[in-house]
Amino acid sequence: MIVITGFEPFGKYKINPAWELASRIDGLQIQKHQIRAIKMPVSFKKIIKMVPEIILKYKPTIFLGLGLAAGRIGLTIERVAINIMDSREPDNDGYQPIDEAIISDAPAAYFSNMPIKKIVKKLRLEGIPIAVSNSAGTHACNTLMFVALHTIKKKGIDAYAGFIHLPLLPEQDIKAKTPTMSLDIMIKGIKQALDVAIKDRL
Amino acid sequence: MIVITGFEPFGKYKINPAWELASRIDGLQIQKHQIRAIKMPVSFKKIIKMVPEIILKYKPTIFLGLGLAAGRIGLTIERVAINIMDSREPDNDGYQPIDEAIISDAPAAYFSNMPIKKIVKKLRLEGIPIAVSNSAGTHACNTLMFVALHTIKKKGIDAYAGFIHLPLLPEQDIKAKTPTMSLDIMIKGIKQALDVAIKDRL
Amino acid sequence: MIVITGFEPFGKYKINPAWELASRIDGLQIQKHQIRAIKMPVSFKKIIKMVPEIILKYKPTIFLGLGLAAGRIGLTIERVAINIMDSREPDNDGYQPIDEAIISDAPAAYFSNMPIKKIVKKLRLEGIPIAVSNSAGTHACNTLMFVALHTIKKKGIDAYAGFIHLPLLPEQDIKAKTPTMSLDIMIKGIKQALDVAIKDRL
Amino acid sequence: MIVITGFEPFGKYKINPAWELASRIDGLQIQKHQIRAIKMPVSFKKIIKMVPEIILKYKPTIFLGLGLAAGRIGLTIERVAINIMDSREPDNDGYQPIDEAIISDAPAAYFSNMPIKKIVKKLRLEGIPIAVSNSAGTHACNTLMFVALHTIKKKGIDAYAGFIHLPLLPEQDIKAKTPTMSLDIMIKGIKQALDVAIKDRL
Repeated sequence: MIVITGFEPFGKYKINPAWELASRIDGLQIQKHQIRAIKMPVSFKKIIKMVPEIILKYKPTIFLGLGLAAGRIGLTIERVAINIMDSREPDNDGYQPIDEAIISDAPAAYFSNMPIKKIVKKLRLEGIPIAVSNSAGTHACNTLMFVALHTIKKKGIDAYAGFIHLPLLPEQDIKAKTPTMSLDIMIKGIKQALDVAIKDRL
Repeated sequence: MIVITGFEPFGKYKINPAWELASRIDGLQIQKHQIRAIKMPVSFKKIIKMVPEIILKYKPTIFLGLGLAAGRIGLTIERVAINIMDSREPDNDGYQPIDEAIISDAPAAYFSNMPIKKIVKKLRLEGIPIAVSNSAGTHACNTLMFVALHTIKKKGIDAYAGFIHLPLLPEQDIKAKTPTMSLDIMIKGIKQALDVAIKDRL
Repeated sequence: MIVITGFEPFGKYKINPAWELASRIDGLQIQKHQIRAIKMPVSFKKIIKMVPEIILKYKPTIFLGLGLAAGRIGLTIERVAINIMDSREPDNDGYQPIDEAIISDAPAAYFSNMPIKKIVKKLRLEGIPIAVSNSAGTHACNTLMFVALHTIKKKGIDAYAGFIHLPLLPEQDIKAKTPTMSLDIMIKGIKQALDVAIKDRL
Repeated sequence: MIVITGFEPFGKYKINPAWELASRIDGLQIQKHQIRAIKMPVSFKKIIKMVPEIILKYKPTIFLGLGLAAGRIGLTIERVAINIMDSREPDNDGYQPIDEAIISDAPAAYFSNMPIKKIVKKLRLEGIPIAVSNSAGTHACNTLMFVALHTIKKKGIDAYAGFIHLPLLPEQDIKAKTPTMSLDIMIKGIKQALDVAIKDRL
């Protein structure tokens, strides 16, 4: 099974391309692995509680988080998650951590164990703009990625875990001030990324 | 009749979204006005010669030029064309004008007579990123727009003439360093723009 | 005499680098031509009234307008002013023109008659970031430049008229989200630009 | 003692603002702590060898690395260094690591122990553009910061270690395509940052 999480809307954006995308590929099969899409609250505390539950319940082969990074030009696949929460505004539960560890007795960081360079190479061959990112930020996205990698490590689960940031959708930037990507291309990219990851595990 | 021009490839870009788009809508009808797509050379001298010939031959209701503006985030509809050619590199015929008038006895500038604000308003309602631009540059795109507006004025032709710049296509920026827009969205936008312009003339 | 205008503060910016700069070089001599700095209101109507009065009163050898263009990276010297006022927000007198001609019976545009390429070349030799801009916008800056060039032309005054846009000052962007330039470098650049222009007239 | 390292020139940039800055504050005193500036080679292997030697030799109260990050708008103080070297081009010794650990048996990351938020707050009060960065990249700068923090941790040295990235100098971008900052402002900022750090240790 493949678990894809997509965040709910947050802040000034009324829709979140992460959940738009995840919900549209829910139930699809990638190399006979079924995709299960899960909507994630933009809540530090709920993420920290839910992610281990999801991983232990579904024991997925791949756990891939999706999130919005308004301003990024293409898909960006994250290399590393760091053990910190530092938020400029309160989350959807009203909680705003400043320079707080996600998990106090965990390491400073985890590198994604997904084949990020292979994914980048394949998507570029398909004509999809993508780059490696060295920072998933210090908000909900990084927290989800960190907790997923920590869970896999601590529980000895043989799975890939990673995170891909999405740009805004075109309809979210009609004044043409921030780069966007169409949902069709995002979906094509994520499906290809999962395909590369599944093949890499064989 | 609607004439749409799209430039041929130029410089480091092997395809030009302007011609990709124009060729795909060739023959379509917008409010019973048929679209005729014409491929334009990236050649200052040929543009100056060909544009009046095209306008006098087809006597179009709308003459819309399309061109690539790598780096722009959405569609940009040009407000004004200025009487100057100033090129950083030679055109496809090897000609590189520096601070030269396009037409020596013509005015300094022409404003587009298309309903640019109505077009922007409609496309934004449709969720398509677009903005008004106050500079079409000083290369082939500005030259084409200037010559079209000059021809219409001098020959007393009752037509709309304008220019829309397109961003790069996603497959032209696979490293995700420059904003892009998918061809589907560009096509939808240009068709809507033509529809607004045709209705505005009724 | 050299007349330098610098706009007063406008909108969210509490100081305007244009007036900060102009006031600091007031009274200096460039090649025996004294600089007279004049503070300009951000008011379309006052600009249209004041600029001809200033030019007729001082009969300057050079009339150079300065204005803020937040977001630009270096100095930008304007090539052309267009006959339109189109403002996203009311000016300091509460007036907000939309697609209105500055002067109804004037041409669509005037090119600056300053030696803009020579100025760019000299400043770059001095290590100062500068570029030619093909749009002074459609707000107060463009209006001032247009009226100055129109006045010179109509009244047959033998003067250079032009406009240079300035980036934000460092202290106006302490969060490091928009490019800035230090006042010292701006001053050095404007003095060099005036020096080039004066020499060009000899 | 305060040790400041500044990298030598690398790639297309013939000077490096990091060493320009470091060399100019060499010998100064901050709160009675003398600054010792050290020029660093852009060489992964030399950095890994030299940084522990420097720290063990000088036992500095503060070890601050400086490096160039062309494209950044203001000073950026790094939050975290990650245990990876991934370089798009060979270093000045011709070595180009791809996805290689800096130190194979070291943790995935170290957070800087400098008071980065206090430094940001103080510099902004002084009008200097600065932001926290969550990625020092995967090249020489990140490597130097990682090795410094690892050394301090492993050897039990009571010191602050951190890294600040600098934008280009104005004379390095005369075409005004990339944001810049003047050396004077950079120097003022680094001196203030050191002052905050020293006071924080009292």
